[in-house]
Amino acid sequence: MPAPKTMTEATIRADLISFLKNLREEIIMGFEKFESQARFERKEHQYPSGGYGEIGLLKGDVFEKAAVNFSLIKGKKIPFQEELGPFVATGISLITHMKNPHAPTVHMNLRYIETETKRWFGGGYDLTPMGFPHNEDTIHFHNVAKKTLAPFGAEIYPDFMQQAKEYFYIKHRNKERGVGGIFFDHYNTGNFEKDLAMWKAIGTTFLNAIIPIYEKRIAMPYTQVDKEKQQIYRGHYAEFNLAYDRGTKFGFESRGNTEAILCSMPPDAKW
Amino acid sequence: MPAPKTMTEATIRADLISFLKNLREEIIMGFEKFESQARFERKEHQYPSGGYGEIGLLKGDVFEKAAVNFSLIKGKKIPFQEELGPFVATGISLITHMKNPHAPTVHMNLRYIETETKRWFGGGYDLTPMGFPHNEDTIHFHNVAKKTLAPFGAEIYPDFMQQAKEYFYIKHRNKERGVGGIFFDHYNTGNFEKDLAMWKAIGTTFLNAIIPIYEKRIAMPYTQVDKEKQQIYRGHYAEFNLAYDRGTKFGFESRGNTEAILCSMPPDAKW
Repeated sequence: MPAPKTMTEATIRADLISFLKNLREEIIMGFEKFESQARFERKEHQYPSGGYGEIGLLKGDVFEKAAVNFSLIKGKKIPFQEELGPFVATGISLITHMKNPHAPTVHMNLRYIETETKRWFGGGYDLTPMGFPHNEDTIHFHNVAKKTLAPFGAEIYPDFMQQAKEYFYIKHRNKERGVGGIFFDHYNTGNFEKDLAMWKAIGTTFLNAIIPIYEKRIAMPYTQVDKEKQQIYRGHYAEFNLAYDRGTKFGFESRGNTEAILCSMPPDAKW
Repeated sequence: MPAPKTMTEATIRADLISFLKNLREEIIMGFEKFESQARFERKEHQYPSGGYGEIGLLKGDVFEKAAVNFSLIKGKKIPFQEELGPFVATGISLITHMKNPHAPTVHMNLRYIETETKRWFGGGYDLTPMGFPHNEDTIHFHNVAKKTLAPFGAEIYPDFMQQAKEYFYIKHRNKERGVGGIFFDHYNTGNFEKDLAMWKAIGTTFLNAIIPIYEKRIAMPYTQVDKEKQQIYRGHYAEFNLAYDRGTKFGFESRGNTEAILCSMPPDAKW
């Protein structure tokens, strides 16, 4: 596929969009399996500059809050990269806040952006224990990421892992947000098909990274004191999202849908 | 007093510092009167670049959380105004989060900054109902501000009121943080003594602005549902402080004391 020359030509390939939509449904089903009754509620919204989004929100007995959102946005300029001009962007974005403090929060994002002269992939997934880290979970999560990326080059996992380490950092607390994962942005090696395959692989293997952890953790016993510790860590998570996260800043700056942007906020927090 | 020419000469006049310290004690006593048992706990910290701060933190039956902090900071450059070079800054900063949802949050700040070539006053106070606005409280609060500023010029209250309206604005929610108040920054009319008198008057009349409101509100009946509404509004307050507040950004950027910077965070919040 040649890079689009003008924005009228810039149409994101249908297979990218259908991949994201199908993956989103798969994740929604994977999460709903844990819930006896609760189901994702869906809500569509339009972007004034063009395009639409769909929030999927679950409030359950296992997932205190989970959001799995899709968006396809057209706009005149990308906030903070305005020199690139008009753009089309599509992505899915996901966050969980679990009832059980032993079950970590997970965040995943896959995005693809086209401008008149550039196009790139971005995304990743990262894990945040809420006061109760389990070393074997961290190892499992990173192992899935490492195996997923291995076919695309031995250097990729260490690179993306390092980027996650740097990106998900709470500067004012001098600590990482969680136990890391993988993160990449502006990814374009010149080999579109290979980049796409890697991006898809990250999406496809996401459930393998998180589901075994949830299977182990959601029935662990915990106390009200543990719950309060979780709420303190949720506060740190909220701090990162509001003070540092580029997605949040991007969303606020582009006057995006506030509900969709703030889907990542914890259901509650304490300071 | 001539403007200081070099930073070795830049010593903040002792009467400014003692004014702030005395005012802080007065406010602390004013708040403690509402509490049968709880008292402010004090904690001093040093700034790596020079100077110190003292947090005063109250966790009581009426004040779910109140912080009344003092600081005197020396530094090589002011974040976001680095061209101004070395500076000395002193101030008090105050926040309340009340147990009763009918009792609004109040925020007050007085600060004075000197650089090699410039010096200015800043500060103000503003009121934020947490889901239960009472019109007469808003009127009283603004009336105190208006009367306080009247002797210094009829244009000042409308100006500072407008600045508060614009500053305490939650862009992504298209709403003001609360019901306003007064806000000013980089204030220097060339008449130091007059500016100082105005700045002091704002501090001196602060308790008149808030205490009568608390006397009315802290015993009002409320339900658990009201409390949850309060927590939603506290979430919006947290959003403002982390995403927009210049004090927070300044603090994070200057690697200030995290506990002092985040004193303004609500004790809890819901999303």
